[in-house]
Amino acid sequence: MKHIITRREILGLIAKTGASGAVLGASNALGIVPNTYVDIPEIPSANPANRPNVVLLGAGVGGLTAAYEMKKAGYNVVVLEAAAKAGGRNMTVRHGDLIDEVGNPQICDFDDEPHMYFNAGPARIPSSHRNVLHYCKELGVELEIFINENKETYIQDDAMLNGKPIKNREFTTNARGFMAEIMAKNFTNAELDSPLDEWETDALMHVLRNMGDLDEDMVYRGSTRGGYSHGGFLEHGHALETVALRDLLKTGLFSMAMGQNEGETGPILFQPKGGMDQIIKGFLRQLPEEVFYNVMVTSVMLQDGGVEVVYEHKGMKYKIEADYCFNSIPTHLMTGIDNNFPEDYREAMRYVRRGEAYKSAFQAKERFWEKDDIFGGISWTNQPIEQIWYPPHGMYKEKGVILAAYNYGGGMHFTQLTQEERLETAIRQGEKVHPDYRNLVEKGITIAWHRMNHMLGCSARWQKSRGGFTQEEERLFQTLRNPAGNHYTIGDQITKHTAWQESAILSAHWAINDMLSRKAGGNMPGRRV
Amino acid sequence: MKHIITRREILGLIAKTGASGAVLGASNALGIVPNTYVDIPEIPSANPANRPNVVLLGAGVGGLTAAYEMKKAGYNVVVLEAAAKAGGRNMTVRHGDLIDEVGNPQICDFDDEPHMYFNAGPARIPSSHRNVLHYCKELGVELEIFINENKETYIQDDAMLNGKPIKNREFTTNARGFMAEIMAKNFTNAELDSPLDEWETDALMHVLRNMGDLDEDMVYRGSTRGGYSHGGFLEHGHALETVALRDLLKTGLFSMAMGQNEGETGPILFQPKGGMDQIIKGFLRQLPEEVFYNVMVTSVMLQDGGVEVVYEHKGMKYKIEADYCFNSIPTHLMTGIDNNFPEDYREAMRYVRRGEAYKSAFQAKERFWEKDDIFGGISWTNQPIEQIWYPPHGMYKEKGVILAAYNYGGGMHFTQLTQEERLETAIRQGEKVHPDYRNLVEKGITIAWHRMNHMLGCSARWQKSRGGFTQEEERLFQTLRNPAGNHYTIGDQITKHTAWQESAILSAHWAINDMLSRKAGGNMPGRRV
Repeated sequence: MKHIITRREILGLIAKTGASGAVLGASNALGIVPNTYVDIPEIPSANPANRPNVVLLGAGVGGLTAAYEMKKAGYNVVVLEAAAKAGGRNMTVRHGDLIDEVGNPQICDFDDEPHMYFNAGPARIPSSHRNVLHYCKELGVELEIFINENKETYIQDDAMLNGKPIKNREFTTNARGFMAEIMAKNFTNAELDSPLDEWETDALMHVLRNMGDLDEDMVYRGSTRGGYSHGGFLEHGHALETVALRDLLKTGLFSMAMGQNEGETGPILFQPKGGMDQIIKGFLRQLPEEVFYNVMVTSVMLQDGGVEVVYEHKGMKYKIEADYCFNSIPTHLMTGIDNNFPEDYREAMRYVRRGEAYKSAFQAKERFWEKDDIFGGISWTNQPIEQIWYPPHGMYKEKGVILAAYNYGGGMHFTQLTQEERLETAIRQGEKVHPDYRNLVEKGITIAWHRMNHMLGCSARWQKSRGGFTQEEERLFQTLRNPAGNHYTIGDQITKHTAWQESAILSAHWAINDMLSRKAGGNMPGRRV
Repeated sequence: MKHIITRREILGLIAKTGASGAVLGASNALGIVPNTYVDIPEIPSANPANRPNVVLLGAGVGGLTAAYEMKKAGYNVVVLEAAAKAGGRNMTVRHGDLIDEVGNPQICDFDDEPHMYFNAGPARIPSSHRNVLHYCKELGVELEIFINENKETYIQDDAMLNGKPIKNREFTTNARGFMAEIMAKNFTNAELDSPLDEWETDALMHVLRNMGDLDEDMVYRGSTRGGYSHGGFLEHGHALETVALRDLLKTGLFSMAMGQNEGETGPILFQPKGGMDQIIKGFLRQLPEEVFYNVMVTSVMLQDGGVEVVYEHKGMKYKIEADYCFNSIPTHLMTGIDNNFPEDYREAMRYVRRGEAYKSAFQAKERFWEKDDIFGGISWTNQPIEQIWYPPHGMYKEKGVILAAYNYGGGMHFTQLTQEERLETAIRQGEKVHPDYRNLVEKGITIAWHRMNHMLGCSARWQKSRGGFTQEEERLFQTLRNPAGNHYTIGDQITKHTAWQESAILSAHWAINDMLSRKAGGNMPGRRV
């Protein structure tokens, strides 16, 4: 605890270690900012007399991307979708929609209005996700700004302040104040390898004073940044009473509060106007006859120079022989479908597990949050609902749809409950944040992704520990990412940044580019080894 | 430097000192969060046989608010405006608009499209400004989200990294990393009045590790939150190289970078769709015949039970005798207009100084910032232009209007230049942030608020030092805030949080309520003392 700032830290001379396990784990916890580029595959136009035939399994973002790009190049594409509609996990729920959870089907009963929708799957598009943005632009999907962090929202923890919710601005202002004071008071140059000089130390103190809104004596005595008790315009404002650091430390949400605006959710986020599935609708406008619904694939067989797919539809059996198959069926379901994949490929498919994300939503009878200065953003609680999201759209309309629970890691907590219990739990927990919650919400819906028909899981999980891919995991990953014969597994399941649409798109681009490079090498059938 | 956390700091037992001078100064530097409530004056309906006559001087936000509310109650209201259009500092500049700067009139030559506008005055509405939001709702002004902080924007300082601009995310991630490491390494419990126990210390370390994205050994070795050098989706991402704390400390923009999302600009911000003057247009829809333009007030005389106003219009002189006068003429201009105000009232008027804010804007030939992942937000530089704002609206359209300079405190720097020199300076300085800037922007406009006709100044400045109001300033303020006879000075100039529309509105509400309370006391003429 002695060497406070080493030469390395000061001069930044030592190279980065990269995304080591620890860094990656911490990064994932708060979201990271991948730096990718738009690189749409350049597919040579097909010879009209000899168009490649491609069958795509699954009409999610990955499959539709691949189908769209290959159709543009003149390929014959056929997309087989198990569900009654396209989108996969890109799912927007509106009035009358079926939530096809196994054993718990629901019909959404929200008011039938354009702003009354719920993005049950992806709901945020970071501005760094250039490929999603590219397709939104190309497909005419209008984007609007999504609000992730809003300092008017609440942080509530039963262990903190007797469970009383406090505004995010109050939390963060006090936290920054006390932390800046600690840093200023403790700072010493004595044992630095390369000590800060007087000017640099002054500069640091200046930063700390501003960061914490400290008094001239570098003591935090509260700040109007956290909110006013009274005054503010006609008269000088007076700050709220301070909340002690000791109290703030009682909640495990502290890190979230200090890091909500960092990393992947830090820059600007977007949502499509009218629901995330506007992206799906955009693709489908370009694929009006290529997507077939309610199709159950029963067999996928590699052949010399192609793939044979057998499927059922309304009790009838069909067979397609295609030059290529792009398959986004979740691998843990694909292993249950007849196939002749190589054993290592099957082994990789079996390895991938799936997340158990759970969401629920309510229709709010009135937009009660707006009366509390909340326009978009997220309230956080230590209870299993974890989050309450307020819509960034529909301002000042009569009603709105709020996310009432978003349990990313442990959806099983809710899954074991009946639908009525799930909703009652969400209400009871929401009441700790908004006391009159019970009277303000209605018509709840729930989504347990690991029980959704045709998916039985949320995003793919490759890593068994948070410490990054093991060597064995890397081998399995590379096996599955590369084709088996002319069969490509696609989707966010074969990327290292799962659960994002950007990844699904990039997996499709990767597979197309790989296909093209192999064709360039002579279009040999079978699997290159 | 020894008592790191005192009992007070830990337990938060000592009451806040309120907005002391130092706190207020620091708060103003980063913006504060006033906590006000919507309290529209309840004006008893006027007797139709005896409607009060009110003359309002100036059709800015304050005057229009007062006129609107009193007209609703059945008062006869007349608004006299010196300029050719309403709004005052609420000014949106579009194709063909005159910028009426004394000695430097300009006609805006932007393309004639709805998204090609520039908010030359107020451009942001904090979600805590409930009264502005109230009128937007009541007047049918549609709001959209304004982006203030965007981590994809740049920070550029000639003194830092040889003037190379770096992304805000890179700056803040490194700053947070090194600061968290310093705090963790330096933390000691030894001399605390009320030491953190082991659990609390662990909790703090956990927060610091997450805040800084530190390694397990509590050392900052870079973080993918600041951006990727390569990878991120298909493969693991690798972070950019670290930037040393020593380098970051070289810029005076450090505090801004750590506090841009704090205080008044911290929660959600809005802008009216189509330009800030949609608010003015909303008021004018409700006052279709009450506002008169190109009117020069030449005399304001208090009378028993009323106010006499003389004005000129197109060479003719007119006189109005009204029961009340609500006057938002900037006081430094009002002192040059004939009046019979009491000497202490005049003294107060003379005391108020005005800011010298300067803004300029360009039409961009293409939305070059979007290719750089920037969608809204502000880049900062140590050069006199200080800021470059990217529009949060018009995404993916061909062109856009960007703010090219926002110099809040020292507009004189630009004012002494010719129009051509002002624009050349903005280009030369902008090139340090965006190298190809010169070829990307055109049709620049500039606004020197202290030279704008009929205003000759930006927001009112009461305080001569940053240390809060002196006793004498408080006396002058209260003198001017209270009426002289039946004459009220209104506008943000008689509030303690000037430069915001919310303040102008609240000043109008205050004056109306004061008028009503005095009427309730018997409607006595003259000034109550």
